[in-house]
Amino acid sequence: MRATVELSVFEQHRELLERATQACRTRSSFSAFDGAEVSVADRDEAHRWFAAQVDNAFELDQPGQRTLQHDEVSPYTGQRLGISYPKASVEDLINAAEAAQTGWADRDLTERIGVCLEICHQLMRANAHLGVAAFHTTGQALGMALTGSGTNALDRGLEAIAMAHQSLARVPASATWVRAFGKTKTSLQKRYHIVPLGIAVVVACASFPAWNAYPALLANLATGNPVILKPHPTSVLQMALAVRICRTVLADAGLDPNLVTLAVDNTDQPIAQSLVTRPKVGIVDFTGSSEFGSWIEDHAGQARVYTETSGTNTVILDSVTEIDPVLRSLAGSLCLFSAQMCTTPQNIYIAADGVRTAHGVISADQVETALVQAVQAISTAPTRAAAIMGAIQSAKTIDNLAELTAEIRGRSRILLEPAPYQHPDYPQARTSGPLIAGVDIADQDLYGREHFGPVAFVIRCDDSTQALRLATAGCRTAGAITAFVYSTDEQYLNRAEREFATAGAALSINLTGAMPLNFSAAYSDYHVSGLNPAGNATLTDESFIAGRFRIAQTRRPA
Amino acid sequence: MRATVELSVFEQHRELLERATQACRTRSSFSAFDGAEVSVADRDEAHRWFAAQVDNAFELDQPGQRTLQHDEVSPYTGQRLGISYPKASVEDLINAAEAAQTGWADRDLTERIGVCLEICHQLMRANAHLGVAAFHTTGQALGMALTGSGTNALDRGLEAIAMAHQSLARVPASATWVRAFGKTKTSLQKRYHIVPLGIAVVVACASFPAWNAYPALLANLATGNPVILKPHPTSVLQMALAVRICRTVLADAGLDPNLVTLAVDNTDQPIAQSLVTRPKVGIVDFTGSSEFGSWIEDHAGQARVYTETSGTNTVILDSVTEIDPVLRSLAGSLCLFSAQMCTTPQNIYIAADGVRTAHGVISADQVETALVQAVQAISTAPTRAAAIMGAIQSAKTIDNLAELTAEIRGRSRILLEPAPYQHPDYPQARTSGPLIAGVDIADQDLYGREHFGPVAFVIRCDDSTQALRLATAGCRTAGAITAFVYSTDEQYLNRAEREFATAGAALSINLTGAMPLNFSAAYSDYHVSGLNPAGNATLTDESFIAGRFRIAQTRRPA
Repeated sequence: MRATVELSVFEQHRELLERATQACRTRSSFSAFDGAEVSVADRDEAHRWFAAQVDNAFELDQPGQRTLQHDEVSPYTGQRLGISYPKASVEDLINAAEAAQTGWADRDLTERIGVCLEICHQLMRANAHLGVAAFHTTGQALGMALTGSGTNALDRGLEAIAMAHQSLARVPASATWVRAFGKTKTSLQKRYHIVPLGIAVVVACASFPAWNAYPALLANLATGNPVILKPHPTSVLQMALAVRICRTVLADAGLDPNLVTLAVDNTDQPIAQSLVTRPKVGIVDFTGSSEFGSWIEDHAGQARVYTETSGTNTVILDSVTEIDPVLRSLAGSLCLFSAQMCTTPQNIYIAADGVRTAHGVISADQVETALVQAVQAISTAPTRAAAIMGAIQSAKTIDNLAELTAEIRGRSRILLEPAPYQHPDYPQARTSGPLIAGVDIADQDLYGREHFGPVAFVIRCDDSTQALRLATAGCRTAGAITAFVYSTDEQYLNRAEREFATAGAALSINLTGAMPLNFSAAYSDYHVSGLNPAGNATLTDESFIAGRFRIAQTRRPA
Repeated sequence: MRATVELSVFEQHRELLERATQACRTRSSFSAFDGAEVSVADRDEAHRWFAAQVDNAFELDQPGQRTLQHDEVSPYTGQRLGISYPKASVEDLINAAEAAQTGWADRDLTERIGVCLEICHQLMRANAHLGVAAFHTTGQALGMALTGSGTNALDRGLEAIAMAHQSLARVPASATWVRAFGKTKTSLQKRYHIVPLGIAVVVACASFPAWNAYPALLANLATGNPVILKPHPTSVLQMALAVRICRTVLADAGLDPNLVTLAVDNTDQPIAQSLVTRPKVGIVDFTGSSEFGSWIEDHAGQARVYTETSGTNTVILDSVTEIDPVLRSLAGSLCLFSAQMCTTPQNIYIAADGVRTAHGVISADQVETALVQAVQAISTAPTRAAAIMGAIQSAKTIDNLAELTAEIRGRSRILLEPAPYQHPDYPQARTSGPLIAGVDIADQDLYGREHFGPVAFVIRCDDSTQALRLATAGCRTAGAITAFVYSTDEQYLNRAEREFATAGAALSINLTGAMPLNFSAAYSDYHVSGLNPAGNATLTDESFIAGRFRIAQTRRPA
């Protein structure tokens, strides 16, 4: 009965899976959720749903004792959410996951994939609730919370399911093998078993949890591994709701809902170190700081570790036809979600001689001034700022920004002071426009590492050749996910393409217009190359899937 | 001109590649080298070639100073080979590989694959020379040196090329991507670059270098990485010849031959630690002891590490129809290459009550006696022994065997003393029949770890359920590549299949007859599961390929 139900779930989503699979191959544009706009009525209902969660127990029937989560504070209202979640010991979470594992790994591939697709489907149905939960934990503007943390994150999840399905389907279930040894023929019947690695722990980040957690969660489930999802203690609600949806789909399919559990901890008593080093944990997906990413790589030797950490993304302004569209795009990128995205550029290189344009050279001073103006057109206009910048997830980011500003004031040029804007709907919102500093190439101690949040450096260099050398060296030492080069010189662009590829940054060339520079398209853009310290978890190439399961075989006389 | 030449090389081997690719998918029987028997005349010529190498400089035009290799001693003649090889510093090898890398990674996939296929082809043409080189370094019987170290190893190499080609070909070179943002359409042209990880170091083992080195070498080359091949200092000649063949093919294709170099070291001055931890080394393939494998995993954090180490392979004798064919197969496996193979079983579990057969129960004592007789039928018959057992690669194995025998004499039952046989052609050959010891389950300090060489334990246990529990626990703690279960009870076999799959040992059920138990078929048998400490390098699944290259992308307005 159950198997039939699940098979029908797979059949129901089969066409979608085929389209996603096709998009992964051609890498042309696709979204499973085009036209699935959230209506105003749905948004309003979602805000009411959120209000009902505040100061209440979150309904989640899983191991653990209901415990008030002190760490969650809305970046918009400044109020503690006051939500209680089931809080379980690491031991209990491990035991529950282990007990759930056996039945899951033995399921037919089609059943597992069907359940994963249904999870995607149900997450999409809850997109408005998930979005408002993201809004009040990450500080994203609601538009981004519904798309970047919603449809786009789910597309990356579906992409991971499609890639996992393909990879698993390429291993046949059985084979007949006949060969002569001397004068005798040996005939063997062989069976190939997909064996999961073990319990998978997904450690999500505070500011953009869904984008990395969905692909990791779904890739792990598809390949047979139970998942313990540990959100950042300040950003639990969206992931708690996602876990509840997973558990409902699993239970409805007659499966053990403990295949997906939520691990809740606190900033003053973190459990991630204990969790990721448990012997039964076979996989760790981590998104967060490079310090903790390195700690996991050094200490969780029992597990296959997938990371996305941090880096210094780069812009090189060599030469342009028109400067204005370029600076508008750059300004938009520096403002989008207050630069709290892993794809935001931080280091902008320009030659001290200025930037060549179709209308003559624009001096470096002029470029700086125009960039600041383009940023201020967003960051000082409350309605635009609210829609684009949203709020700052962590108070620590504001503190760091103040410290960095003070440090720079003493030694370099501050082009734009970081200043809050007044949110039109949430007067208590924690906001900040970018700090933009003008520095020299010698100031590597400043621009040579990531400053999380709205920080950008305009780095004056001798020429674009030096810029390329410094920028790619920065990828290698500090990591980088993206790079942006503006040039009218095809030879230079060829060189940049080659060198950024080797350094492992995804390069956008002469990109302006309506698409945000940061935008990374599921099915088309490979996100994180694995070639520099910014991480090894590529969304979504075969290396993101291949390590999560192994193959064990049996052979016997046919 | 060059490109045309290489393309034609690819075309020349295209059909073979397609057949290998098809075999990887269906996992049915295939060999690229069926019918390629080495004639007696070829063998004689190869022996003469070897004689000419002895006490001479090996012709290999690569970085390094010609240096007499003190460590190579033929296990057959007991004579030092006295061959000189170019010996280079780690620094020079790294620099040469790095200089060669750029041009190689930029080649078209078809060019790289064509070169890899041609290398396979030329290695096969040199099979007789390579086989005699393996004979006088590894101690393998010539038959095995020409097949296991020859055709079978090359099939595993071709398998790796086919898997790499498929994986690389699934990444499109470019895509056009169009999507509306608001009312504006953004059209992007995207390019996807295959980027190798960096210099690849292949550390080969002393007793069976080709089998793991060929797949690693060819997977690395196919994915764009230059290779430094470091053979064991006592077993250089075959790998030196293989490197020379690679370099000739590369040079003939107009490529930098330093894409493949030989790293020679000595047992008293090993360089592997220095080599594998160099920052520019991106990949390490290691075959050898689990101690050094763990050291590499702990210290070569800058590299992706693929390992095949050691383990305690298992036999469970539960119940059989006829005992004699089973014991003949087991005896053959215990004797094959004097149990110096990673697939040889070491731990044989039988219930203290004996083994059920179609003709009644055979007592444990009787099974032991019959097994010893079946082994002696090989190990005391010089001509059979020479053909099956060959010689012992390392004098250390003989010493260890003597120590272990002395240790067991004091506390357990020695069922068969390890005794040399007189090789009919090489009176000085270093040989040994197996040590077979009868132990109890409490003797885990003896059977709970691998004893390299001809050692087997018959472990008396309470029943087959206990045997299965102990055997799979042994896989998890000490590692295991293979397992062999003999039972007429389908329920028991189902349980064994499930539990050995989870423990990650490749299980053969009720296997008897002409095929050696140890035989692992390229394109069909997954070798090493990655699920236990015996290693993570599966020949050949997608995880063996996926980590060796990454993808970097560029996008620009279309």
